[in-house]
Amino acid sequence: MAELCVVGHSIPRVDAVDKVTGSTRYAVDLKVPGMLYGKILRSPYPHARILRIDSSGAERHPGVKAVVTGNDASAERFGFLARERAIFPSDVVRFAGEGVAGVAAESMEAAEDALSLIKVDYEELPAVFDPEEAIKPNPAVVVHPEYPKYGRLPFRIQFLNRPELPNVYAYRPIIRGDVEKGFRDADLVLENRFSTARMHHSALEPLNAMARFEPDGTLTVWTALTMPFFTRSALCSLFSLPPSKVRMIIPESGGSFGARAEATQAAQAALLALKARRPVKLVLSREEFLLDGGTREPMVVYVKDGVRKDGTLVARHVRMIVHAGAYCGIMAITCHSCTFAAAATYRVPNFKVDSYAVATNEPPAVAMRGFGAGQVELAIESQMDMLAEKLEMDPAEIRRKNILREGEEDGCGMPVYSIGVEDCLDKVTEWIDRNKDVSGEEGPWRRGSGIAIVNRQIPAGTTSVVHVKVHEDGVIEVRHSAHDQGQGCNTVLAQIAAEEFKTSVDRVKVRYGDAPLTCFDHGTVGSRTTMHNGNALLLACRDAKRQLFEMASSKLSVPPDGLDVKEGAVYVKGVPERVVRISELFTPLGYLVRGGELVGRGVYTGPIGSEDLQTGQSKRPSMGYSHGASAAQVAVNTETGEVKVLRMADCFDMGQPINPKMCEGQIEGGRGIALGSTLSEEAVVIGGKTVSTDFMDYKIPTSADMPPNGGTVSLMVTSHHHDNGPFGAKGFCEGTMLPQPPAVANAICDAVGVRIKDIPITKEKVLEALKKRNAGG
Amino acid sequence: MAELCVVGHSIPRVDAVDKVTGSTRYAVDLKVPGMLYGKILRSPYPHARILRIDSSGAERHPGVKAVVTGNDASAERFGFLARERAIFPSDVVRFAGEGVAGVAAESMEAAEDALSLIKVDYEELPAVFDPEEAIKPNPAVVVHPEYPKYGRLPFRIQFLNRPELPNVYAYRPIIRGDVEKGFRDADLVLENRFSTARMHHSALEPLNAMARFEPDGTLTVWTALTMPFFTRSALCSLFSLPPSKVRMIIPESGGSFGARAEATQAAQAALLALKARRPVKLVLSREEFLLDGGTREPMVVYVKDGVRKDGTLVARHVRMIVHAGAYCGIMAITCHSCTFAAAATYRVPNFKVDSYAVATNEPPAVAMRGFGAGQVELAIESQMDMLAEKLEMDPAEIRRKNILREGEEDGCGMPVYSIGVEDCLDKVTEWIDRNKDVSGEEGPWRRGSGIAIVNRQIPAGTTSVVHVKVHEDGVIEVRHSAHDQGQGCNTVLAQIAAEEFKTSVDRVKVRYGDAPLTCFDHGTVGSRTTMHNGNALLLACRDAKRQLFEMASSKLSVPPDGLDVKEGAVYVKGVPERVVRISELFTPLGYLVRGGELVGRGVYTGPIGSEDLQTGQSKRPSMGYSHGASAAQVAVNTETGEVKVLRMADCFDMGQPINPKMCEGQIEGGRGIALGSTLSEEAVVIGGKTVSTDFMDYKIPTSADMPPNGGTVSLMVTSHHHDNGPFGAKGFCEGTMLPQPPAVANAICDAVGVRIKDIPITKEKVLEALKKRNAGG
Repeated sequence: MAELCVVGHSIPRVDAVDKVTGSTRYAVDLKVPGMLYGKILRSPYPHARILRIDSSGAERHPGVKAVVTGNDASAERFGFLARERAIFPSDVVRFAGEGVAGVAAESMEAAEDALSLIKVDYEELPAVFDPEEAIKPNPAVVVHPEYPKYGRLPFRIQFLNRPELPNVYAYRPIIRGDVEKGFRDADLVLENRFSTARMHHSALEPLNAMARFEPDGTLTVWTALTMPFFTRSALCSLFSLPPSKVRMIIPESGGSFGARAEATQAAQAALLALKARRPVKLVLSREEFLLDGGTREPMVVYVKDGVRKDGTLVARHVRMIVHAGAYCGIMAITCHSCTFAAAATYRVPNFKVDSYAVATNEPPAVAMRGFGAGQVELAIESQMDMLAEKLEMDPAEIRRKNILREGEEDGCGMPVYSIGVEDCLDKVTEWIDRNKDVSGEEGPWRRGSGIAIVNRQIPAGTTSVVHVKVHEDGVIEVRHSAHDQGQGCNTVLAQIAAEEFKTSVDRVKVRYGDAPLTCFDHGTVGSRTTMHNGNALLLACRDAKRQLFEMASSKLSVPPDGLDVKEGAVYVKGVPERVVRISELFTPLGYLVRGGELVGRGVYTGPIGSEDLQTGQSKRPSMGYSHGASAAQVAVNTETGEVKVLRMADCFDMGQPINPKMCEGQIEGGRGIALGSTLSEEAVVIGGKTVSTDFMDYKIPTSADMPPNGGTVSLMVTSHHHDNGPFGAKGFCEGTMLPQPPAVANAICDAVGVRIKDIPITKEKVLEALKKRNAGG
Repeated sequence: MAELCVVGHSIPRVDAVDKVTGSTRYAVDLKVPGMLYGKILRSPYPHARILRIDSSGAERHPGVKAVVTGNDASAERFGFLARERAIFPSDVVRFAGEGVAGVAAESMEAAEDALSLIKVDYEELPAVFDPEEAIKPNPAVVVHPEYPKYGRLPFRIQFLNRPELPNVYAYRPIIRGDVEKGFRDADLVLENRFSTARMHHSALEPLNAMARFEPDGTLTVWTALTMPFFTRSALCSLFSLPPSKVRMIIPESGGSFGARAEATQAAQAALLALKARRPVKLVLSREEFLLDGGTREPMVVYVKDGVRKDGTLVARHVRMIVHAGAYCGIMAITCHSCTFAAAATYRVPNFKVDSYAVATNEPPAVAMRGFGAGQVELAIESQMDMLAEKLEMDPAEIRRKNILREGEEDGCGMPVYSIGVEDCLDKVTEWIDRNKDVSGEEGPWRRGSGIAIVNRQIPAGTTSVVHVKVHEDGVIEVRHSAHDQGQGCNTVLAQIAAEEFKTSVDRVKVRYGDAPLTCFDHGTVGSRTTMHNGNALLLACRDAKRQLFEMASSKLSVPPDGLDVKEGAVYVKGVPERVVRISELFTPLGYLVRGGELVGRGVYTGPIGSEDLQTGQSKRPSMGYSHGASAAQVAVNTETGEVKVLRMADCFDMGQPINPKMCEGQIEGGRGIALGSTLSEEAVVIGGKTVSTDFMDYKIPTSADMPPNGGTVSLMVTSHHHDNGPFGAKGFCEGTMLPQPPAVANAICDAVGVRIKDIPITKEKVLEALKKRNAGG
């Protein structure tokens, strides 16, 4: 590969100046003339029939311009796959916090006042909260009795066909070899149950949406979303509008981590705007964000392993229960994608996965960074240590023995390609060994180390469209529909375009977030952007260059394929002094005689494999994988149960990093979320009601909770280039929060000899486990 | 031509709903966060040296964020051709009302307060106000002593080369035959001097601009302009920015009539924004609009005719003095384009034109609807009646005898094509004869009738670019950069696109006014839009259809040229039931597998002729002409001088009207402005100072001043299709205010026997002329 001039260099982010000068305008900052303030009345019951709603009091409030209930909404429903959720239900509420009515008023105060004037009569219904209860055959409580009639759940309908399990939204199996025979052949069989808590995305900007119906009937929605084209599709059905009459404007977002995927707020704001005939802005409070903003899915994962004495895995059965809650939303996808975590790190000849997304009357879960994989990796990587302990092996050794090698087939039957996991493992263990504090324990504190290795699948078969406009002054404008939630995709795309045009990033302009300019994108999910939008951008750049070279060909008297571009000029290959500036290809007034403007277009669809639906086997279920590893050194206080992470090394394999510093930033950010999920974060729901509704009760780690300066390092493996990524890059950001929880859990076990299988690992859990062990439990 | 389904039909305007519901947002309505208010301090002297500006008082004002003077501006200057004007002069002010300093403050009140705290010391200089004085050789006052060094005035530099005429900005000659010999051969030679007053555009929305520098250095300007790409070019020089770093957003405008052409407010707002580091909005008051918003150019026109006894014109010499004022601006173009008015209605074998744009210390003139032609037509058409009177001929007969016929060469040597002027004349004379009140005069009132015929040139050699995006639901989006100032071009373009796709206008969306979306356009000037943007749109539609047919070809198993499109579907010609819907050519997610989106592109440049610069002779100096005629019946009060227009018929030849009702609307609007200019409108400047600075002193006609209901009619000649116009249409809107002034002047003369050669024809002028005549003058 030719030397890279821009890609691979840690240039400052293209949005750095906007961000640090405070000029970035987030969705929550936006105002339009005549804008009303929306507020939502929410059900206090987790499961109840709505008998009557009397909104007359609210309607008489002088500041109120519209009150909407389920009766105002169309019969159409929305939801990522199942389309099972109404904008406001007219019959039954399924979780505490579900909206039952909305108000649009001249001020936020008037809207809040008006909410208290709406009287709703409910009939409480029996509810189910435990997914392991809900998943049982013929359950007492069925969350969606009318579920089959939606008829839009391919996963459930096709694979399961078990009407006695009405609370299963979706199901995905993987079957490879004979797992039962494998267990019979094993020297040791070990089974454990792991679980993870409900987790809040904690994006600093609360969820919000603003909607306006234009006089021609067009619906304009301003909202920062990761999958705006799917939300547009939902709004089209809900409001009976053709696609060209729904304009999605996607402003900057103040963090997402997966939270900005559902259409709920956009649909509620639009319904209010329709009735009020005024623009309406709806901003959730932090409490509402926790009640109805979606959380990371809690999961229960059973892992049963069969292993030979030498540590070779012969059989593994993983049973995953994705706690989707009151509405399925994207959990049908999560229930599919989380299975890859179990399939693509280790060689397991007899392998089985059963993954279920389960309905309860708890708040609905939505996507969160890692997308089900972190929960599975906690289970697998804890289990690997438990196997090592039983076999008296080194934790690194048992892993190395079973790691998939280049060219082998993984658990889904996909040939392993570009796997850098062993390099990652080597790097983190070397660093932690070199840096760990060898001094003895002090007082009640005990020290221990742990490691974990993980994979993250990059989704296959999705499409991105990118256009490139070459301006008359040679500036390259990249028009895309990915959403920079902070991960830096605008910078990544600018670097790719600059590299392709051999120019500097300050000659590249990135435009995004407005449908008339940009074009379809599957969504900024699953770490797919660098590979999909990046590849579409490469194609668009090449299309633009083709057109440039055709125009320059006659001026330079050289065929187009004898030309190249550099620093705003087309030159003759091998004769760099024979050039025509891009600006000279335009008329002095700034247009092209043919076509007026120069736009290159690129459409990239990742490889699509045919998956066997009964066995999950496929030659191409994924675009690819990135892998990573963590090593942690912890101190555990045996008197209080407190855990301190002293040192941590995280290493990921992203092939060619487009911007190494930003990759490090992703690893650092991933570590923060991961340690929060490991040690403190839990959105507590009691009796169906979310009780941790602010940052006093929901504890995210602060910088004070991070290992002290010098106690962490973000490492990279950059040698495993991926053929399907631009310049060999792999998507990896979501994976950066996967290995730390099991590494820390393993380190705690190493320190004090207790195995906590349910995160977060709170002081109380550690203390109780220590007590139980001391009592000989 | 196939039957037209949409073109030629009077559908409602596409912006009708926005306009009548008040949801249209004009530039003056816009606000952005952090916006400051700009105000300009203006010179009280028409010509003075700036000795010193002390802005320290203003800078200390607590609400003030920036004060700018000529010292803050770059040395670069702007102006349509000459680039002779500074944002703020640092040396000499050249007219009373010229800005010398600007203030940006947190409120309008603070900005106004601060203006009074700026102290400017001036040294008054001798000034010149009369263009006939200024044009004399070696004048005492030279408005721009440094003029030759600008070196950007092709008209003046190339043609005139007379350094003794330093106040001539520009000059254009036409020479055909031998005009002196013609006068010698004539039976009658008649010479007259005519003049027209300074006229205000009276657009309801005052001139305004808002500017913001983005953190990446991009300058965004919001301002409703008719030639945004030329203003962008000026801003690029003034602020040393490349074109891709100046974004022009062109909102709706509340009327223009030519006023929105110069960069003054945009440049002033941008300079304030640059210094204040905040967005700045500058809105002129009505007084400022009259002081420094530009006015219609006053003109002096000498016409000398030689004619045979039978009324045949043998020679004509027209000398035009365009009073450009303190800065040339677009007057170098006006001085060129106004000459066509004298050249393209009548056959004159010996023909000469001398046209001058002249500098004085009066406020600068800018373009106004008709662009110099109305002043010339007043002179020519008054003169035709005076010739008829001398020869005792019927005014219609002398005109008919001399009207150019199809295929002849006009005064510029251009072959006459599509000339409907005689049909227009017939229609208005028939209507006025049929409808005129034959009852006798009452009291002091005397009645009379008059006619006039005119031409309006459509500029040649200019370019428009239009793009057409076909949406996944079959909606056709037209992206153009013309500016709908009220004339209805958005509707015209929507109709053309709907016709080309055989669909209804509600399936067409028109987008405009934002550089990232739309592309180069020469400007919405000279009635060029229907022909230029219309033709570019046709090309874009055909390009989009070509792509559609290529995609549909394989689905329908028919070659692309066997396909056509109708109502959102591609069908097999002759087999209309074999169709594929446009939406079926897209993936279900709404993109195209090839390219992502479907965009057709059209670039249209009007025919470019090579003009002989010494003689003005060319085979192609114009895109074409439209012609028109008016007939007026007036009553004149011999005691007060008051003139009432009783009846009026106006007829224009626009070839194929795209929207007949809108064409009638244009004629009606043109009539209103024309009658204002004829009878009342005058921006009075005394000693260089504009004294009519509001609508009390500057009298525009109201509906009460119009002839009563039934007293006017707007007629159309639609049979003279133009090959170069879309569906045979011709641009004609600017011409609609040309024939009424001479028709009314002729009717007044017919009624009371006095010839007023200077408009407006006020009561005072009529009374004075009557007195003079009665005294035997």
